[in-house]
Amino acid sequence: MAKTGKLGRGVALVGAGVSKFGSFKDKTSRDLYVEAFLDMKASVDKGFDPRDIQTIYVGCFSGDLFESQGHLAPIVTDWVGLVPRPATRVEDACASGGVALRQGVLAIASGLYDVALVSGVEKMTNLPTERVTDTLAAASDVLYEASAGFTFPGLYAAIATAHMAKYGTKVEHFMQVGIKNHNNGALNPKGQFNRSIKDIMLARQKKCQDQGQPVPDYKSEMDFLKDAAANPVVAWPMRLFDCSPITDGAACALLVAEDIARSFTDRPLYIIGSGQASDYALHGRPDITCIKASQIASKEAYQMAGVTPKDIQLAEVHDCFTIAEIVATEDLGFFAPGVGPKAVAEGVTARDGAKPINTSGGLKSKGHPVGASGVAQAVEIFKQLRGEAGPRQVPNKNLRLGLTHNVGATGGTSVIHVYERR
Amino acid sequence: MAKTGKLGRGVALVGAGVSKFGSFKDKTSRDLYVEAFLDMKASVDKGFDPRDIQTIYVGCFSGDLFESQGHLAPIVTDWVGLVPRPATRVEDACASGGVALRQGVLAIASGLYDVALVSGVEKMTNLPTERVTDTLAAASDVLYEASAGFTFPGLYAAIATAHMAKYGTKVEHFMQVGIKNHNNGALNPKGQFNRSIKDIMLARQKKCQDQGQPVPDYKSEMDFLKDAAANPVVAWPMRLFDCSPITDGAACALLVAEDIARSFTDRPLYIIGSGQASDYALHGRPDITCIKASQIASKEAYQMAGVTPKDIQLAEVHDCFTIAEIVATEDLGFFAPGVGPKAVAEGVTARDGAKPINTSGGLKSKGHPVGASGVAQAVEIFKQLRGEAGPRQVPNKNLRLGLTHNVGATGGTSVIHVYERR
Repeated sequence: MAKTGKLGRGVALVGAGVSKFGSFKDKTSRDLYVEAFLDMKASVDKGFDPRDIQTIYVGCFSGDLFESQGHLAPIVTDWVGLVPRPATRVEDACASGGVALRQGVLAIASGLYDVALVSGVEKMTNLPTERVTDTLAAASDVLYEASAGFTFPGLYAAIATAHMAKYGTKVEHFMQVGIKNHNNGALNPKGQFNRSIKDIMLARQKKCQDQGQPVPDYKSEMDFLKDAAANPVVAWPMRLFDCSPITDGAACALLVAEDIARSFTDRPLYIIGSGQASDYALHGRPDITCIKASQIASKEAYQMAGVTPKDIQLAEVHDCFTIAEIVATEDLGFFAPGVGPKAVAEGVTARDGAKPINTSGGLKSKGHPVGASGVAQAVEIFKQLRGEAGPRQVPNKNLRLGLTHNVGATGGTSVIHVYERR
Repeated sequence: MAKTGKLGRGVALVGAGVSKFGSFKDKTSRDLYVEAFLDMKASVDKGFDPRDIQTIYVGCFSGDLFESQGHLAPIVTDWVGLVPRPATRVEDACASGGVALRQGVLAIASGLYDVALVSGVEKMTNLPTERVTDTLAAASDVLYEASAGFTFPGLYAAIATAHMAKYGTKVEHFMQVGIKNHNNGALNPKGQFNRSIKDIMLARQKKCQDQGQPVPDYKSEMDFLKDAAANPVVAWPMRLFDCSPITDGAACALLVAEDIARSFTDRPLYIIGSGQASDYALHGRPDITCIKASQIASKEAYQMAGVTPKDIQLAEVHDCFTIAEIVATEDLGFFAPGVGPKAVAEGVTARDGAKPINTSGGLKSKGHPVGASGVAQAVEIFKQLRGEAGPRQVPNKNLRLGLTHNVGATGGTSVIHVYERR
């Protein structure tokens, strides 16, 4: 069992930014990276000289397979003008960004560095969709899962059906996650999708009308999501609107030693908890209704932070599929096992609920450039805890504690951070 | 410029092991990893419970491209029985192993962990040779180098010709590096090639004789290496015997906090210096007769260690090509710029010379499983400084200080460590 130790010194988050997320055929990883870097730079209240950055961590799942570009860390470091600083890529599938953030925390805690750039990037849309699916399947256990025909929608569908069987979870619960996250994402101008599912539904009806076709009589968004023509099954019970999209994007965050934080901003956040754990690939687990690595990593992060799940006021969780958000909210201890579906159904996880989840739109609506997602989650917590999230700002005026939860593959890796505004 | 800071606490190396290096068609990364892990475990004098390992770093250049397997860290962690410890892959091309080692050092220095497994693995021979060359080219700047037709032999050939033009370096100097490293590698049973170039020459002569063909009249190994039939040009002036081979292999090392080192062994080594730097890709540099990242990283490592290049008694350097070893010995400050060729010609870098370089056989003879090489270098220093290198043990009885030098691509990354026996 991993030791729940103490960091040698405190670490603060003083800047955070993202590129626009979406599909950008004419851009490379390095272009997206520069965009995120400049957005981060602009977020540092008192300004700073980028040359003060001493080390760089870059989360990326597979520049190798997506762009035929390995050794990406020094290249993006060059493009933001930071040669010869040490530049290290870290990879734990879709948790690459969160793990990069954690390496930055450790690097500062080690005493060697005072200022670290942590970041993530993925340029996924170069390949046709079916090849993206195959590429992502490389994050499964290829000998036992991909080779048996599993792709990620299938793997998460297995988790979903297990959850349904054990707890009576319904497809409507999955759909409610999608509706909520699109409602949030509609308010996030940097996200890939800027529309609520209601708006997408209305647009579909209008399109049918404009084209002189029969107009579907949707009584609600749920009605729309149950229309197989509008929302086809990808791997039952996961339909199109249960799956995060294929996304190009990058995210950057600036970490500094606690004692120098106020020379960057009067409103730093402090990273008071960090946890990471591994697990067997999905086929090797006794129980697939939860992600044990998230349970272990969150326990470690809570213990370091000296907080309980109840204390966390909002969280960005890894909703690569809608079922993943439900499982995450249970693994993190926000709700008891099996109670996640009820929480979303009752609006507890809505932006104005008691425990807002994925106010950014989540991976589902904001998009999921896999290596960047873990850092982009930190960007959202940065904005929310500082009251800078604009129209999607949560109504709670006393926000103090946030959390990010970033999962690699089906939970082979999970990495959690807890952030505090003091 | 990277800060040359102080680590929060000291880090010791108490165990180190490798798999056999070579071409193993029936093995996967995970098989090689287990082999290296068990070799490392056996090297820990007082024994230990592997469950005391708290975190795992895995250097790998591209399981994605070589084996279609991403997210390798939790998989190898599973195969050595260490789930649910946090497991992180790091990638900086051929410096991935050295960078993994450095992350382990930082993780322990951070105070969070006392015991870290650092490791590297690459399974390269699944692909046909020409596809391996293309795969490795992904470590170049693909937009400006690979797309212009450059592969790694070509990139290092450019460095070689620049060195020849500036310093009068001759092809014979490159050949002398190969001869020396094969002489060392002939004494390394874990290496890919276990034969001196002289033995390879004699075998070729015998083969000709056995087949009734004219027997080449080689007067020396140099004669043999100049025979285009025996040693064809790959990218002039780099010939076959100037290039490290394509290799499958893994390496593991056990790092612990200084204060608990003696519960693992009475003969720990201490990692007293660590440096890492980045640079532009080769096409963007004003001077390609040196690798500036190595100069910067070594300066940082020396400063942390409080030593000078003169103090280093032996080193494993990154001889992916023979020219790379010559440049490395200059970048590390062992010899002045342009004096590296003379040093190898005069036997200074031989096993019984004043500054033994690559006693393991180096990447050239031992083999170069790219993600593993940086950790395998530490394994050799571990054995040499403890007097356990068997027939290739350097004659100096007062060995105290060793160094490893691990380069990514053409020097986009360089990472250096200094080891001390006290």
